Amino acid sequence: MERIVKLLRSYFPILEWGAKYTGKTATSDLVVALIVSIMLIPQSLAYAQLAGLPPEIGLYASMAPLIIYAIFGTSRSLSVGPVAVTSLMTLAAVAPLATQGTPEYTGAAMALALLTGVILIILGFLRLGFLTNFISFPVMAGLGTAVGLQIAAGQLTPVLGIPSDGGSFLSQVISLVKNAGQINIYTAAIGVPVVIFLLIVRKNLANLLTRLGMSKGLAGTLAKMGPVIAIIITILFVSGLGLDKHGVKIVGTVPAGLPRIALPPFDLSLWSKLLTPAILIAIIGYVASVSVAQTLASKKRQHVDPNQELLALGASNVGASLSGGFPVAGGFSRSIVNFEAGAETPAAGAYTAVGIALVALFLTPLLFFLPSATLGATIFVAVLSMVNFKAVKITYAYSPTDGIAMALTIILTLTLGVIVGLIAGIGTSLMMHLYRTSKPHTAIIGQVPGTEHFRNIKRHEVVTNAEIVSLRIDESLYFPNARFLETKVSEIVASNKEVQHLILNCSAVNSIDASGLESLKSVNQRLKDTGILFHLSEVKGPIMDGLKKTQFYLELKDRIHLTHYKAIYSIDPELAKQTLEKTK
Amino acid sequence: MERIVKLLRSYFPILEWGAKYTGKTATSDLVVALIVSIMLIPQSLAYAQLAGLPPEIGLYASMAPLIIYAIFGTSRSLSVGPVAVTSLMTLAAVAPLATQGTPEYTGAAMALALLTGVILIILGFLRLGFLTNFISFPVMAGLGTAVGLQIAAGQLTPVLGIPSDGGSFLSQVISLVKNAGQINIYTAAIGVPVVIFLLIVRKNLANLLTRLGMSKGLAGTLAKMGPVIAIIITILFVSGLGLDKHGVKIVGTVPAGLPRIALPPFDLSLWSKLLTPAILIAIIGYVASVSVAQTLASKKRQHVDPNQELLALGASNVGASLSGGFPVAGGFSRSIVNFEAGAETPAAGAYTAVGIALVALFLTPLLFFLPSATLGATIFVAVLSMVNFKAVKITYAYSPTDGIAMALTIILTLTLGVIVGLIAGIGTSLMMHLYRTSKPHTAIIGQVPGTEHFRNIKRHEVVTNAEIVSLRIDESLYFPNARFLETKVSEIVASNKEVQHLILNCSAVNSIDASGLESLKSVNQRLKDTGILFHLSEVKGPIMDGLKKTQFYLELKDRIHLTHYKAIYSIDPELAKQTLEKTK
Repeated sequence: MERIVKLLRSYFPILEWGAKYTGKTATSDLVVALIVSIMLIPQSLAYAQLAGLPPEIGLYASMAPLIIYAIFGTSRSLSVGPVAVTSLMTLAAVAPLATQGTPEYTGAAMALALLTGVILIILGFLRLGFLTNFISFPVMAGLGTAVGLQIAAGQLTPVLGIPSDGGSFLSQVISLVKNAGQINIYTAAIGVPVVIFLLIVRKNLANLLTRLGMSKGLAGTLAKMGPVIAIIITILFVSGLGLDKHGVKIVGTVPAGLPRIALPPFDLSLWSKLLTPAILIAIIGYVASVSVAQTLASKKRQHVDPNQELLALGASNVGASLSGGFPVAGGFSRSIVNFEAGAETPAAGAYTAVGIALVALFLTPLLFFLPSATLGATIFVAVLSMVNFKAVKITYAYSPTDGIAMALTIILTLTLGVIVGLIAGIGTSLMMHLYRTSKPHTAIIGQVPGTEHFRNIKRHEVVTNAEIVSLRIDESLYFPNARFLETKVSEIVASNKEVQHLILNCSAVNSIDASGLESLKSVNQRLKDTGILFHLSEVKGPIMDGLKKTQFYLELKDRIHLTHYKAIYSIDPELAKQTLEKTK
Repeated sequence: MERIVKLLRSYFPILEWGAKYTGKTATSDLVVALIVSIMLIPQSLAYAQLAGLPPEIGLYASMAPLIIYAIFGTSRSLSVGPVAVTSLMTLAAVAPLATQGTPEYTGAAMALALLTGVILIILGFLRLGFLTNFISFPVMAGLGTAVGLQIAAGQLTPVLGIPSDGGSFLSQVISLVKNAGQINIYTAAIGVPVVIFLLIVRKNLANLLTRLGMSKGLAGTLAKMGPVIAIIITILFVSGLGLDKHGVKIVGTVPAGLPRIALPPFDLSLWSKLLTPAILIAIIGYVASVSVAQTLASKKRQHVDPNQELLALGASNVGASLSGGFPVAGGFSRSIVNFEAGAETPAAGAYTAVGIALVALFLTPLLFFLPSATLGATIFVAVLSMVNFKAVKITYAYSPTDGIAMALTIILTLTLGVIVGLIAGIGTSLMMHLYRTSKPHTAIIGQVPGTEHFRNIKRHEVVTNAEIVSLRIDESLYFPNARFLETKVSEIVASNKEVQHLILNCSAVNSIDASGLESLKSVNQRLKDTGILFHLSEVKGPIMDGLKKTQFYLELKDRIHLTHYKAIYSIDPELAKQTLEKTK
């Protein structure tokens, strides 16, 4: 019984915090919800536009997922809904399969959300969260920069009224330049000032308000209301001057009401085409969400369970799909607002969903004159902060292979689009990792006089013996470097005709996989064929436990030494003792 | 000038050994060549049959590659030519694209060899040999077992005269069972006795000859002549009794003469379909060759240069292609014969090529009555030694994840064929590796009384302090485990409300990539947000060199300690000293 309760609690964190829920927490959560839902309206509409979907779909994607996350999520602050990267990836995945504005397009976006959710849930139940580790920091950061640029370029279309053919950053830039002559002055006259206004607000309002005595958190939150102000002003502006008659694109009629529960189209050929993007959206969305959730949780010494988050985010996406929405993830900016406004429990998210539902029910007529240019401008300004070229330089300086992986991810995403760029980035990052670990650092070591210590002969004054070679390998022995060890030993043996003993110092070896064991076996066999004895020294406990199960151990047993000094002593006690007794 | 000579020598190892070539070495090499060429005739014919090609193509593939390898190769003993795995992979790659027996089929096999060669040469020039590390031991061993079974099943067709539809092991077994009634008694009457004969010869002849006083090496070589004897006897048998008129398939007319230099068909659509198999053949052929070459070289304290081997094997494959052959690799059994017969230099290989050329020029009429059953029987017996199911059990006992990767490679290769099985095996092996490294071993450590040593609190009696947590991570910090560290620290902090300092002991950390650095940065930031100070201890020299270039180092500087004792001392000198002065 107790076990069942524990299991239920782990799958439904709401049982944990819900039991302690008080009126005071509720009041605090309700205030948060009010602020966040006002902020989410423009964001939801804008990301729907980015994904090529009608505005109401953005509202739909900000209701069910929030409520579902409140039930399953382990973060107190994470706010799920449409975010920049996944919205762009939705566009990239769905645009080639259906025409924007058709029910097929919306259906495909729903199917994508369903697949994304199911993949996350499967990963969660099978405890395969480690697979998301395929995304390294350079790939994630490179993707952010490239996606930021691609989205920014794409939003120049609504902001300036220039038609564009979409696609990768490169093809968008080309089509923007080609169509530059078709700029709509009225649209630009709204879009450009809004961009400038939002940039100023973002940069200065928080500072100004803080200086006026407001608390930092509240000031930051209010500064994020810039888009709301821009929306209100531009709606008044467009409707007052009738600018929609001069080619300024407006949102138009947004159907009022709540989403209906509906299944996405069941079409295996469509699903198979959406599978790869769904996997990528699942991984990217999850990695970004967990990172935000952990950062916020640690500020309050709370803990986020990465595995449960797979299930929570998966369920949120399934919820998004069934309520007519598109893929969602935990957003950085919206979660920050949630956190800084003082969300105490995930209930704040559920209340936010109610707030948005009220807008969807009663306020959609007010959005009729909302210009697309304003939505484009809010996205344009939001994504600019994702662009960070300096990171490439900094990363390259620390680790050239990582810098290359990051640069490649950026270049390929900009030229070939987000899906191809991401896959190539993951591949590159894996290869760079294999490259690095395939050539581990090694050192020939000798005894430091007066001690039992052994150090690199190139860096220290040490005592060696031509018949005994001591090799230290500074890496675990696993398949990426298995052949390296064999080649290294073969080089040493071929160039040292006097050697009779080779001791492999394993002090830096943390694990030995089956390939590593196999290479030790063949090194041992090959040395034996040449009349050289193979020894191991300083093998760590957990590795010894594994080795003891092998035939190799039985063969080598007497030549596995606890310390390197003991290894040398077992071969040439005189030398070892003499060196030990020398003064340094 | 000197540099050019050195460069030439590294690209043309023949310049090195050729300069020291004497009459005595030549005599020895010629004797070896005589033995090896006799042994290679049945092998060449049989592997051509396995690949679905006419017999003369097998001879062609055993001429040019041997001569080219003699120029570029760094192994003194490696013998290149058609081998079991690459021949099967050729069949798997080409059979879906062309009908056996047509010039298109042979052309596709030639194109496959060209692509394989070009890929190897590119890998060699770009020094990308590390990419072949993708093939782990479990995958290679699993592939051997599955390929052995698949080939053995396939050879039951010529051995018993039962028609089969080819394909994977599974589909072959099904079609063999279905067609069992169509067995040709005359064919089986040749095939089955030859199999038994070859098994007996392989198992007992070497022992018998050694007991009769022959040297072990020579006895082993003679025992490998079994196929030659079987060929001679069955040719006489079939021609004497006219069995070819009773449905016994014979080799028939083998066109006499040397191969002509010809380009494979230039057809981009064909090439693109052959690209994946070519990459896999290149990698598998290379890995097998280098392993054989290194094993044999070490017996004579010689060294094989893995990078030059890429070029040599690549050039050999290009040579095979241009002279009408199919993909080649360094064969295990043929290289052993070469080595044991006493090959002194790669010239022995070139002489062998001449021997095979003589056969191709003058002796092909003798092969007319050679039954396919005999060739099938030689392959059947040869590949049985590749099958090793026990390896799965042994590997699983040592490392379960590796055992699973091996089992999966076997199962998928048997059911879905060699190309799919191999790709899935590589993928699984990579994932298992990521899985393993994504959850490194960690330990909370404490000070051993009376020493400056720190050990796992779960295994030793140690002194700790509730305000200071010492965490040791037993793995390098790189992207597969970057998030693990963050989660681990978050768990510790969430469950220890008193902690003020967290010291990460890096004594087992061999490297920190950009993702690892990023996770250290976010751990530091998150701890700071909670009011906890983050320290590092025992960071290795090469890592420190890298860290010093970062902003992170400037921030942490005073909290990076040379030893863990110094770290504790810097926080709580009283505790550290008291514990040190305690008697154990």
